[in-house]
Amino acid sequence: MNIHDLDTPAVLIDIDTLGRNLSGMSNYCHAHNLTLRPHTKTHKIPQIARLQLQYGAPGITVAKLGEAEVMADAGINDILIVYPLWGEKKWIRLTELAKRVRTSVAMDSLTVAVGISRASKAAGVEIGIRLEFDTGLERCGLSANKESIAIAQEIIALPNLRWEGISLYPGHIMGNQKIREHDIQLENVKLDQLYALFDSAGIPYPVVSGGNTPAAFQSHRFHGLTEIRPGTYIFNDRNTVDAESADYSNCAVTVFATVVSTSVPGKAVIDAGSKTLSADTLLSGEQKNFGYIQDRPELILHDLSEEHGHLIVPGDSHLEVGDQLRIIPNHVCPCINLHDRVFIVSGEKVVDQWNVAARGKVT
Amino acid sequence: MNIHDLDTPAVLIDIDTLGRNLSGMSNYCHAHNLTLRPHTKTHKIPQIARLQLQYGAPGITVAKLGEAEVMADAGINDILIVYPLWGEKKWIRLTELAKRVRTSVAMDSLTVAVGISRASKAAGVEIGIRLEFDTGLERCGLSANKESIAIAQEIIALPNLRWEGISLYPGHIMGNQKIREHDIQLENVKLDQLYALFDSAGIPYPVVSGGNTPAAFQSHRFHGLTEIRPGTYIFNDRNTVDAESADYSNCAVTVFATVVSTSVPGKAVIDAGSKTLSADTLLSGEQKNFGYIQDRPELILHDLSEEHGHLIVPGDSHLEVGDQLRIIPNHVCPCINLHDRVFIVSGEKVVDQWNVAARGKVT
Repeated sequence: MNIHDLDTPAVLIDIDTLGRNLSGMSNYCHAHNLTLRPHTKTHKIPQIARLQLQYGAPGITVAKLGEAEVMADAGINDILIVYPLWGEKKWIRLTELAKRVRTSVAMDSLTVAVGISRASKAAGVEIGIRLEFDTGLERCGLSANKESIAIAQEIIALPNLRWEGISLYPGHIMGNQKIREHDIQLENVKLDQLYALFDSAGIPYPVVSGGNTPAAFQSHRFHGLTEIRPGTYIFNDRNTVDAESADYSNCAVTVFATVVSTSVPGKAVIDAGSKTLSADTLLSGEQKNFGYIQDRPELILHDLSEEHGHLIVPGDSHLEVGDQLRIIPNHVCPCINLHDRVFIVSGEKVVDQWNVAARGKVT
Repeated sequence: MNIHDLDTPAVLIDIDTLGRNLSGMSNYCHAHNLTLRPHTKTHKIPQIARLQLQYGAPGITVAKLGEAEVMADAGINDILIVYPLWGEKKWIRLTELAKRVRTSVAMDSLTVAVGISRASKAAGVEIGIRLEFDTGLERCGLSANKESIAIAQEIIALPNLRWEGISLYPGHIMGNQKIREHDIQLENVKLDQLYALFDSAGIPYPVVSGGNTPAAFQSHRFHGLTEIRPGTYIFNDRNTVDAESADYSNCAVTVFATVVSTSVPGKAVIDAGSKTLSADTLLSGEQKNFGYIQDRPELILHDLSEEHGHLIVPGDSHLEVGDQLRIIPNHVCPCINLHDRVFIVSGEKVVDQWNVAARGKVT
C-alpha cells in the first residue's frame, strides 16, 4: 500500500528515520555511560517502547499511571512514573502495578511519599522513589537547601520505599546551541551545590536522572548525570529543529493531509487543523506558524482552525484541491496524542499500522 | 458519587447548565424562526446530540465523515457535513451514509461536487448540497461574483445532488459586542450582494446557513439567515465569556484537577496540562493564560506543559498538595476532543458517565 491510498489526515511514521533516531541516542548513551530511560509520552505506542528497549534502554518513563498500565500490559517490566501521584485511588493502582513490574515514582513532597509508602506497606510491595529538584524550570521540584535534604531523609526512612536518587527536568535548557552553552554552565553550578548538600548529609544518590530532547546530546556535560529521559528524540519535530538539535531529515513523523479548498486567492485549506496537528506554537517563541511543509517550504501554515489548516500560497506557487502534503508538526507529542492510530511507512510505502494504545489515559 | 470520589483530571459537564444552554438557544431560534442545526464537533457525544434534537433541532452538523457515522449509529437521521470532502474513499463512505440517513455536504468547488455526484449516481443515492461562500473569514468559501454563480449553476445541474442553498461561516465575527455591531453591518452588505447575484440568475436558495456561537444570539439581525450551526453554545467556555456572549455561570464544562506540587514558592502545579485542557489561547488574543479557575479567580493558570498546569498563587492565597480545583477551559472543543469520557454532574454529584464516542474520527 502507498501513502496515497490512505484516507487523510493520517499520521505517518517513517520507520527508517525512527531507526536512525533510536540508534543515534542509543550510541550516544552507550558512549557516555548514561542510562537511557526514554519518556514514552511522546509516542504512547507499545511497539515503539519495545524498540527502545531493544536499543538498550533498561526501562521506560511515563507521565501517567494509565500509560504505565498499558505499557506493563505490553510486557515492559521497568517503569518510572515521573509525576507526583496524589490520592488513594492512584496509590492503590500504583501498588497493583508494582506487583507486576519494577515501578518507580518521582515526587517533590513528603505528603506524596507518605501516601505511597502507606499504600505500598498495605499491599506488601516496594516502590522506587526519586526526589525531584528544580534547577530553573520552576515547575515541580524542591530547591537545593537544607530543608529539602531533611525531607529527603524523612522520605528515605519511610517503609516500603526503595530510594533511588535525584530527578531533574532541565526543560528550561532550550534555545539554540549558543544559548544552551551558558545554561549548561549555570546548571552545573546548581548541580554541584545540590550534590554537596547530599554528600554532607551522607545520603547516597545512585541515580541522577535528567535530560530533555533539545539538550540530550549534551548530557555528558552535565555534572553527575547517570540517566536521561528524552522523549521527543524518537521522532523529532519542528521544535527540535528550531533548537538546533535535529534537522528536518531527522523528523520521523509527518501528518499527511489533502488540500480541500483553494477558493480564497493566495490561500489554500488542508484537512489538518488543531485537532490533527495540535495548536502548539514553537517553544522558543521565535517563529510563528504551525508546522513545516516537507518538500514545499514556500508554503506557510500560518493558522489552524479545528479541522482546517490555513496555508499561505505565494504567487509563484500553486495548489489544487486534491493535492497532498506532508507536514512536520511543531510539537509531535500533543500531535500523536490526538490520534488513535498511526501508519508506519518507509518512503511512500505503508508497511504497518499501530494503535496509540496509551492515548487518552488521562489519570 | 461525589466529584471528590473521581480520579483527576476529569472532565465534568454540569447537566443543569447544559439544560439551560439547550433551552436558551432553542427558545431563541424558535422566537426568530431560525432552524438550529447544532455543530456536534464541540461535544462529539451522541447523548448530547440526541438532547439537541429533543430541544428542537431537526438535524445536526459535523465536521468529519467519521463523526457522522458515529452519530448515525446513535440514531441521528439528518446530518450535515460542513466540510469539503475530497477523494474516492470519502465519497464512497458518504454514499453509504446517505443510504442510512438524510445527508448533506457543504463545499466550495465544482471538483468536490463532481466527485460526490458521480459516487452518488453509482450508489443510487441523493446527497444534499450547499455551496460555501466566504464573507470575511478567508478560510473556505467562494467569493460573491458571477464566476461563483456559474459554478453554482454547474453544480445544481449535476445528477444525484439535492440543491439546498448557501452555507456561510461568520467565524470572523468575534470580539466584544461593540466590535460585532460594525461586523454585522458589513456582513449584511456582503449578504445582500450575494443574494442579488443568486436572484438575478434565478437560482433559489431555500437554506441560508450560518452562525457561530459568539454571534449566535444576533443571528436574526443577519439578512436572510434561515439556519444557524453554533457548536460551543452547548457548553460555553472562556472564549464565549471573553466575547461577551455568555458569562461563567453559563459554562457547563469544567476540568476537575488536583494540586500535585507546591514546591516552587508563589506557584503550584495541577494535574491538567495541554493534554487535558488543550493549548488553545483565547481567540481574541486579548488575554493570555489557559483557563479560568472557578471560585478561585485570584489563581492564574499562566502556562501549560503537557501534563502540568502552572498556577501563579498570589501572596494572600494558598494551595496545598491534594487541593482540587475546577477549571473553565479557554476553548472547550479541543479540550473535550482530548478525552475518551466525561462525567455528568449536578453541582458536586456525579450522575452519569458518557463516552466521547466521535472523538478520534479524524477522517
